[in-house]
Amino acid sequence: MANDWATFGSDLHLELRGPGLRTGLMDALREAVRSGRLEAGVRLPSSRSLAADLGVARNTVADAYAELVAEGWLTARQGSGTRVAQRAVPRRPAGAGARQAVPASRPRTGRPAYDLKPGVPDLASFPRAEWLKASRRALTAAPHEAFGYGDPRGRIELRTVLAEYLARARGVHARPERIVICSGFVHGLMLIGQVLRARRVREVAVESYGLDEHWELLRRAGLRLPALPFDELGTWTEALGGMKGVGAVLMTAAHQFPLGGALHPDRRVAAIDWARASGGLVLEDDYDGEFRYDRQPVGALQGLDPERVVYLGTSSKSLAPGLRLAWMVLPESLVDEVVAAKGTVDWMCSSLEQLTFAEFLRSGAYDRHVRAMRLRYRRRRDELVEKVAAHSPDTTVSGIAAGLHAVLRLPPGQEPEVLRSAAWQGLALLGLNRFRHPDVPQTQDGLVVGYATPPDSGWAGALSALCRVLP
Amino acid sequence: MANDWATFGSDLHLELRGPGLRTGLMDALREAVRSGRLEAGVRLPSSRSLAADLGVARNTVADAYAELVAEGWLTARQGSGTRVAQRAVPRRPAGAGARQAVPASRPRTGRPAYDLKPGVPDLASFPRAEWLKASRRALTAAPHEAFGYGDPRGRIELRTVLAEYLARARGVHARPERIVICSGFVHGLMLIGQVLRARRVREVAVESYGLDEHWELLRRAGLRLPALPFDELGTWTEALGGMKGVGAVLMTAAHQFPLGGALHPDRRVAAIDWARASGGLVLEDDYDGEFRYDRQPVGALQGLDPERVVYLGTSSKSLAPGLRLAWMVLPESLVDEVVAAKGTVDWMCSSLEQLTFAEFLRSGAYDRHVRAMRLRYRRRRDELVEKVAAHSPDTTVSGIAAGLHAVLRLPPGQEPEVLRSAAWQGLALLGLNRFRHPDVPQTQDGLVVGYATPPDSGWAGALSALCRVLP
Repeated sequence: MANDWATFGSDLHLELRGPGLRTGLMDALREAVRSGRLEAGVRLPSSRSLAADLGVARNTVADAYAELVAEGWLTARQGSGTRVAQRAVPRRPAGAGARQAVPASRPRTGRPAYDLKPGVPDLASFPRAEWLKASRRALTAAPHEAFGYGDPRGRIELRTVLAEYLARARGVHARPERIVICSGFVHGLMLIGQVLRARRVREVAVESYGLDEHWELLRRAGLRLPALPFDELGTWTEALGGMKGVGAVLMTAAHQFPLGGALHPDRRVAAIDWARASGGLVLEDDYDGEFRYDRQPVGALQGLDPERVVYLGTSSKSLAPGLRLAWMVLPESLVDEVVAAKGTVDWMCSSLEQLTFAEFLRSGAYDRHVRAMRLRYRRRRDELVEKVAAHSPDTTVSGIAAGLHAVLRLPPGQEPEVLRSAAWQGLALLGLNRFRHPDVPQTQDGLVVGYATPPDSGWAGALSALCRVLP
Repeated sequence: MANDWATFGSDLHLELRGPGLRTGLMDALREAVRSGRLEAGVRLPSSRSLAADLGVARNTVADAYAELVAEGWLTARQGSGTRVAQRAVPRRPAGAGARQAVPASRPRTGRPAYDLKPGVPDLASFPRAEWLKASRRALTAAPHEAFGYGDPRGRIELRTVLAEYLARARGVHARPERIVICSGFVHGLMLIGQVLRARRVREVAVESYGLDEHWELLRRAGLRLPALPFDELGTWTEALGGMKGVGAVLMTAAHQFPLGGALHPDRRVAAIDWARASGGLVLEDDYDGEFRYDRQPVGALQGLDPERVVYLGTSSKSLAPGLRLAWMVLPESLVDEVVAAKGTVDWMCSSLEQLTFAEFLRSGAYDRHVRAMRLRYRRRRDELVEKVAAHSPDTTVSGIAAGLHAVLRLPPGQEPEVLRSAAWQGLALLGLNRFRHPDVPQTQDGLVVGYATPPDSGWAGALSALCRVLP
């Protein structure tokens, strides 16, 4: 999407943007009319001369004029040329100020040259052709009622194949009637937060390190969030027994975010034991469970006790966050409350998108995509480990057995300096302490490196940039 | 989707469901394994004999077996036949009871033969081919970043074409930076409710008749909902001046739901005057503004004062509720608060779906679809008026100038009797008083007939069924 400026008439500039030249020209002309820069009645240059000015084919301009005439923005009369229509043009409402002057497209300046922030898969690898195929099949096969208001739990077709997939790939005890499709993990967590609060839960324990955006969702629901201690075996779930007000615990058991380890089996059992003894719930955030490189994926905690664990999965890491497709597998006792919180006419994912994803799963395209990405990410991880070892012997890479990110442990006190240096070099990078719970003292310095984030073409450059900023 | 039952082995029944025979067979076999009806190690009949039992091609069974072997549900060994695998099979968790016994697909029994409930367009008319075309173009043209986490307001491509469309078709003063895409009208209303409550608004006035589901969303946000009086000119907005605690008013100005009229021009002005004088907001629910039959569509109220009106539009009536695509055009002063309520990582519509809709709008497919549906609905409306007049002279049809529904006024006291008779005949129908605000006394009997709801093939039958239950 190039930004071209064309001089128009005496002093009128048109910003051409949008996917095509014709569309860009139409957008620019509409914008000029809307903003009053082109007043009603003004005669536009001939398509031939404007095409010459812009260096585009004459037909492009002629087509744009014709469409704008059809839309009522312009008029064309024999002998009078093309003019801005006299119709009532939407004007800037009174009092419109600075905000309206902001251009609709984001400026490119200010974007970092390389991005190693965690939390996003390689977006350039989205399987567009396979997705489109699934979309065509889904759209063709969909019953008419799929276009209507649906079951608040989501399409039964998707819940059915998801139940099979989760049982097979993640060891989840899933049944379609206990699955609720939601618009991303955050939507699910928000619903669970509301349900917990309605059950008079006041506190949800969280891990020492995690995502403040998720904690904030629970805080908004009125919950307090004490932190669990953390050691080399992972989150110290035995501490739950001593936390009297806690009604649930939010955990990344298969792959701690951001530190990277799998929860020790004893700790897994301790979490379940606590939930059984106290009547509490474990909220299992299984955000990237599909990606494990050196051995079999760690099965979901939910398999240990489906009645005490809320399993939350997502397509955001395995496929793309832009889909906004996630799922919860709920204890039976929670289904009605979550559905009530969602509401019978509540927002949800598009049914077409759900059916497309169901078809994508059913056809095996999802398995193939995950396998291909696993190989690619594994290769990147190996390169990361190798390069960092070569360039910065003081830096240890940890949390590398799984997932889309690794933690680079820095010598004490070095984190802020490295982050400053990265910012200076145009490398987007996040420090470990950004993910630290406010009650947990700072004991280590590090970087959380999302090695999945860059496209393939940018990976080598991003890795070199990273090595340059390491001590 | 036929439901066939096949006897399997001695006494095992397989329910074949799903889009294809092979899929259906696979589903049924997985379900039999999962539920324990087929135990680990059990030998399945040969594909030849099962195919004969089921009356399907042998390859269908062989393919289903092969896929289930690949998925790990079955094993196949030379000389030993096909058996249920010894793998750890997900079992029903302890304590699972009645809920799990519910079949995944909904029973057909109990569905009404005809449906004239309002609120849903003709789902059979969803423009699948055009949508798929737009989807292909959008998926091809999408920048990589479209697959990532996005602007909480929604994709700029969609907000840009929507701004143009709303200005042209609905007279809305829209600019892309003031538009927030949401997952259906209810999602938008929920966000506005939260923002109003955070601004310490305590009451939102509503119309005498409306949708309790919408009111409930505002009540959940902690708002009280006093009702405005109603007369032949529409909602009596002059009364707002006397309602001291009210900070906003929710209105269907272009087409009152369900009564059907357009708000009188004086009443429109009164609503805006009140908002200006009191600093209040008008929440304009423009749910079916595109559909007007006898004259030009009534422009949006928002055009009168974009700084005092929150405009809420949706694709649910013009296209399909299953898309979950709606939009708000916000006063400048409200944008930041709504975005904050949505949250920087908040759920939203899929970006692919947004880009598809943007392309659908841009290409003119949306205009063409709306025009085609307008003709079709108008024809149905004319038939409704004609048939009702012929069959039930005591019934008046009103609210017919626009929209997808009409109100049939019944002689006093007849509403419950007609509804009972409809239920008996398998005709889904809603009475007017279902939509009455709890504070408003019952003064009229009637039916709210959604003549858009049936598919074309079911329309004549639905209309005849309706005429049979009228007095």
